[in-house]
Amino acid sequence: MKVLFAIAWAALIVCFGLTEARGEPSLSAATEECLGCHATIHPGIVESWKKSRHGSVTPGQALQVTGFAKKVSSQAVPENLSNHVVGCAECHTLNPKSHPDTFDHNGYDIHVVVSPRDCTACHAQEAEQYDRNLMAHAYGNLVNNDVYQLLVRAVNETPVFEKGKMGTKPSTPLTEAESCLYCHGTKLSVTGTVTRDTEMGEMTFPVISGWPNQGVGRINLDGSRGSCAACHTRHQFSIEMARKPYTCKECHVGPDVPANKVYEASKHGNIFSSLHKDWNFANVPWTVGKDFTAPTCAACHMSLLVNTEGTLVVKRSHEVKDRLPWRIFGLIYAHAHPREPDTTIIRNKEGLALPTDFSGGSADPFLLDEKERAAARKQMQASCLACHHQSWVDGHWERFVNTIAESNRSILAGTGIMEELWKRGLAAGIRTGGNPFDEYIERVWSDSWLFYANSVRFASAMGGGGDYGVFADGRYQLTRSIRHLQDRLDQSRTAKK
Amino acid sequence: MKVLFAIAWAALIVCFGLTEARGEPSLSAATEECLGCHATIHPGIVESWKKSRHGSVTPGQALQVTGFAKKVSSQAVPENLSNHVVGCAECHTLNPKSHPDTFDHNGYDIHVVVSPRDCTACHAQEAEQYDRNLMAHAYGNLVNNDVYQLLVRAVNETPVFEKGKMGTKPSTPLTEAESCLYCHGTKLSVTGTVTRDTEMGEMTFPVISGWPNQGVGRINLDGSRGSCAACHTRHQFSIEMARKPYTCKECHVGPDVPANKVYEASKHGNIFSSLHKDWNFANVPWTVGKDFTAPTCAACHMSLLVNTEGTLVVKRSHEVKDRLPWRIFGLIYAHAHPREPDTTIIRNKEGLALPTDFSGGSADPFLLDEKERAAARKQMQASCLACHHQSWVDGHWERFVNTIAESNRSILAGTGIMEELWKRGLAAGIRTGGNPFDEYIERVWSDSWLFYANSVRFASAMGGGGDYGVFADGRYQLTRSIRHLQDRLDQSRTAKK
Amino acid sequence: MKVLFAIAWAALIVCFGLTEARGEPSLSAATEECLGCHATIHPGIVESWKKSRHGSVTPGQALQVTGFAKKVSSQAVPENLSNHVVGCAECHTLNPKSHPDTFDHNGYDIHVVVSPRDCTACHAQEAEQYDRNLMAHAYGNLVNNDVYQLLVRAVNETPVFEKGKMGTKPSTPLTEAESCLYCHGTKLSVTGTVTRDTEMGEMTFPVISGWPNQGVGRINLDGSRGSCAACHTRHQFSIEMARKPYTCKECHVGPDVPANKVYEASKHGNIFSSLHKDWNFANVPWTVGKDFTAPTCAACHMSLLVNTEGTLVVKRSHEVKDRLPWRIFGLIYAHAHPREPDTTIIRNKEGLALPTDFSGGSADPFLLDEKERAAARKQMQASCLACHHQSWVDGHWERFVNTIAESNRSILAGTGIMEELWKRGLAAGIRTGGNPFDEYIERVWSDSWLFYANSVRFASAMGGGGDYGVFADGRYQLTRSIRHLQDRLDQSRTAKK
Repeated sequence: MKVLFAIAWAALIVCFGLTEARGEPSLSAATEECLGCHATIHPGIVESWKKSRHGSVTPGQALQVTGFAKKVSSQAVPENLSNHVVGCAECHTLNPKSHPDTFDHNGYDIHVVVSPRDCTACHAQEAEQYDRNLMAHAYGNLVNNDVYQLLVRAVNETPVFEKGKMGTKPSTPLTEAESCLYCHGTKLSVTGTVTRDTEMGEMTFPVISGWPNQGVGRINLDGSRGSCAACHTRHQFSIEMARKPYTCKECHVGPDVPANKVYEASKHGNIFSSLHKDWNFANVPWTVGKDFTAPTCAACHMSLLVNTEGTLVVKRSHEVKDRLPWRIFGLIYAHAHPREPDTTIIRNKEGLALPTDFSGGSADPFLLDEKERAAARKQMQASCLACHHQSWVDGHWERFVNTIAESNRSILAGTGIMEELWKRGLAAGIRTGGNPFDEYIERVWSDSWLFYANSVRFASAMGGGGDYGVFADGRYQLTRSIRHLQDRLDQSRTAKK
Repeated sequence: MKVLFAIAWAALIVCFGLTEARGEPSLSAATEECLGCHATIHPGIVESWKKSRHGSVTPGQALQVTGFAKKVSSQAVPENLSNHVVGCAECHTLNPKSHPDTFDHNGYDIHVVVSPRDCTACHAQEAEQYDRNLMAHAYGNLVNNDVYQLLVRAVNETPVFEKGKMGTKPSTPLTEAESCLYCHGTKLSVTGTVTRDTEMGEMTFPVISGWPNQGVGRINLDGSRGSCAACHTRHQFSIEMARKPYTCKECHVGPDVPANKVYEASKHGNIFSSLHKDWNFANVPWTVGKDFTAPTCAACHMSLLVNTEGTLVVKRSHEVKDRLPWRIFGLIYAHAHPREPDTTIIRNKEGLALPTDFSGGSADPFLLDEKERAAARKQMQASCLACHHQSWVDGHWERFVNTIAESNRSILAGTGIMEELWKRGLAAGIRTGGNPFDEYIERVWSDSWLFYANSVRFASAMGGGGDYGVFADGRYQLTRSIRHLQDRLDQSRTAKK
Repeated sequence: MKVLFAIAWAALIVCFGLTEARGEPSLSAATEECLGCHATIHPGIVESWKKSRHGSVTPGQALQVTGFAKKVSSQAVPENLSNHVVGCAECHTLNPKSHPDTFDHNGYDIHVVVSPRDCTACHAQEAEQYDRNLMAHAYGNLVNNDVYQLLVRAVNETPVFEKGKMGTKPSTPLTEAESCLYCHGTKLSVTGTVTRDTEMGEMTFPVISGWPNQGVGRINLDGSRGSCAACHTRHQFSIEMARKPYTCKECHVGPDVPANKVYEASKHGNIFSSLHKDWNFANVPWTVGKDFTAPTCAACHMSLLVNTEGTLVVKRSHEVKDRLPWRIFGLIYAHAHPREPDTTIIRNKEGLALPTDFSGGSADPFLLDEKERAAARKQMQASCLACHHQSWVDGHWERFVNTIAESNRSILAGTGIMEELWKRGLAAGIRTGGNPFDEYIERVWSDSWLFYANSVRFASAMGGGGDYGVFADGRYQLTRSIRHLQDRLDQSRTAKK
């Protein structure tokens, strides 16, 4: 009977989930004070935070974990942060002097915008890697590149038609912030203060230009780059969410970078969609096969993976270049991945800040060489090989490399026709001082490399997404747009006769 | 030992879910008779209904609930409905005289099409609000508007090419029913009866023209407007389903109203997709933070929300105008929301039943004024403020209002060119008796406001969906289509020379 | 007290899921040896397999199941396979002589590519049905059809622009494999062997051209057709996955066959997306209402369905024609479904291997006649009728048949204009030896039937997806492309004057 009791007792414990007796989280006095008002005023974010690890584990506890399960990469954590869970005050009062948006709020020095530099307190390695990531430089790489700015202007400026003539009105910072910079990140600056009547009486807050924004390359008020919240969404900071493809979809839905569309239609995406309800997205380290049976974006590009024996499959990296030999996003051709995250330093043979030139050449000194690409390929294939035999992976990769070359050749044809149209004065290109991206026929050309060649390459890279290589912004549309350019050239020749 | 027993006992109860002893639902005799056959013949809908609240709670019980948890808004419920669960007979035999499709079915007066007026028995407030909702008027607003009918005809009529000439064949009611009226709703009418050999012997049923349909503005046989099943899908009538974005997607997948596409790619949509498996979609009232940590369509536009202390955040409304200052769907420009749900009464300065005129002006007397818009904005922002600070919301709103103005200016440019094309006879516009929506170049123009400007505005309004403001039917495509119009104008000028 | 104990005991059993005492799976010695290495090297697929029925049930056990729950359709199973679970060796060493890729691997005759003929050992009926399925013939039907090959070449060949002239470079087998043949299936062949240094020492493997691939019509090394893994994804072979719409999406995401897009925006798709977390996708047979309350692709097209009393609603078929009277994918018009799965035998009145001719006629002798279509319609409607009354289904079907006719008429108009353009030499059509699918204006024409008419028909067929019948690749785009053709014709007439 004692045995029965013991079993019954065990059952009760399992049923009630008492095995892990966490107890109450240890809140700092400051955080407790924050919650006093904000739990009522902002229940959404407070409840999100309560569901987070930040809300239930102290950095001191997190530091004691060893091996691949360790989530805190800093060697040590400031003592005053060590023994309380990571609450409101822990992040929003950190490094007050370096944040121009610090303001007095009920006796506390609060800053609105928490930056990756703040996160460094516990997550030093991730912050450091991410700062070298191309994405961290997404603001400057767009705003400080003259060629890209021509495209930005062609897209964001407001067309004006007056007295029978076409013109444009410059776009406003408000437009930029929700257009390109929504993903690339805005540059934040404090422009003043505002005083408001609130439920708690009159209060003064900083006014921040460029806010709100969680773009991957946001320029923060403390001068740091990026927003961790781009992927680790506030205030739950859920690793589960960062590992799911919906997070990457926010900026990679396409058609320019159609990663999510392709993934969803791929075999991997099908397995994810059909079966992920039974997977574990929170385990660290992440075990191939046990925790998940098909990769998400994170599994191939960032996450630390182990096999069922706990052996490392591939190490974590917040610098995506580590696993990317190629950049298949055409500018205007696909090319070896840039060496440095700051791509404004690149010059092609025409002197433009582009990784390739219009005639198909690439700005080699600025791009990964063959040996560097081989190293990145090896890192990427490590995750493939956890499920697939080398023959499978080789077969896949051979097609991928072929597709990069073939799609580049198609764009060479289209660009050749476009050059001819520019030469004949049928559009005003960059060499005659025109914007090469603003006229109708120029858009037919930019469609071909910005949407269709990219789509074809993403479908190839991800080993699936069949339609995206063919009829869904794929080869059908790629050849269609090139034939459209040809049609325009033919018509002008006919007209001449 | 007694304690152990007590705990064990508690565990059993939890394990077996016996805490809530519902017992057998109390079926009316009539419903029991329905189920006798239909449980076998139509297992799909009968099982759906069994999973519904209708199938397990009586109106009498529902009436006893007080406060925000109350689901039945009628002051009282007819006595004969009060003590049985809401089964087949309760709805399909209600108000038999007012339903022209009422027919004798095994001795019962059954009607096929249950209408919002039937639902009024228990849900009076929702039915009343919905009848004032723009959506309830979706049939008449489309069918009785001469300008919209020009677009409908241009889209639905069958092209004919005979003897080298282009013409059209009028569309049939069958086409209309599955094209525009699938969402807008059909007008139902009884056209006769049909006798069939069934498993249960020979039976006679009404024949209903326009059936099946669950469009939001369906004209029912009893003269009422709308179909509750458009969102509260039969026969589970699940509030969970109405609160999930998939329901709104049925009609708002775009590209004309790309709400779902934008949502799915937004931060809110990402949180929903990644985390909603742990949320509660059935609780009434719906608690921000506890039940969900990011809004769905319903949360912002319709649902009653409370904070974690049970205090009202925003009240329920089935009239979407209550939270909508602007109508960002361009007709042909975005404009203040119409005052009345019947928009056929609107006249612009050209006398057309359009809320704006071709030169950008708006039909002000028919649209919300500034004060009314401020009230609607306040209702909408109430849900924003449950998670976001006022500074955040202000920053977002400033961009949104700017985008409405900028996108309207872009459409003004495109329409200016189109007017020029009409003037030059390069297309036949409305002023020369033509259909302004049927020719190829006119479609380039309608693309610009019907798809692209809308997409830009939805991405702005929903504070996310980056690509939908840029490359995915966004500003890139908006400027592309306007440049296409310009290209056509330029070509005609060149040809003239 | 004994009673309490008994209840507690029962609770424990339920809590721990001990009711079904499976015990350890009985592995064959060979499979055990495979797992010795591959569990570590390929944890992804080994863990997938462990979650499969193959990994826990022996064919002998499966054979004992009777009635609709039976999953193994072969009358008997080879004795050596009967008493072990279906592990690595059971499939990858089956019929070694018929597989040219069989190679010696640690003393075993292993083949890489398991074929439907291997699966026949247990699943004879499914393999036999599938071999008669149109999909099993997808490779030959594409590759051996001269007309389709013109489209394939127009899409896959690389455009070349040299010395002011447009040309093309033939596509490579690598491109074909990831373009059309990704879904249609590649033709596999062993081209040699490769020796590699592996973690386990030097090993030799076959090199297989066309690999990897899981297209529905793959030509296997043993000469059989198809890949069961196209839908029953290795190595979990989950019926749950095959029944979910994500599987079909891999090849039917559109815009050519926009089934998934339409489904997701339909009422059925909404119910699936909103509620399927509570459904059972693994039960065999699959009970309408109890296991699911809205159909997925499988429910309408393939699965065996029963009602809640266990009575057959519709029998299982791996030959989709059994429930498909029409083929609504336009080639170039929608038409009665082909009789034979090998469609290369079809000849239209112009002698082309097309089910319809350019002037709208259909190659009747090769297509289902009215009586055969009626039989297929009855099978299809059987699943509709499990939830909907006959009046509902009739109303739906009437619209569907009307839409097939109307959309065909629209395509007749567009094709009429295209014929005129060919006649006038404004493009080079098939009768003058040209490729009718490669020029820009020809693509405007192929858009109309390949994307837009198809979208309209799928939205109709699936009784939903409103926007897909109108603004999302629907009637708006269909009429737009036909007006575009007309515009080109008008312009050429104007130019002539």
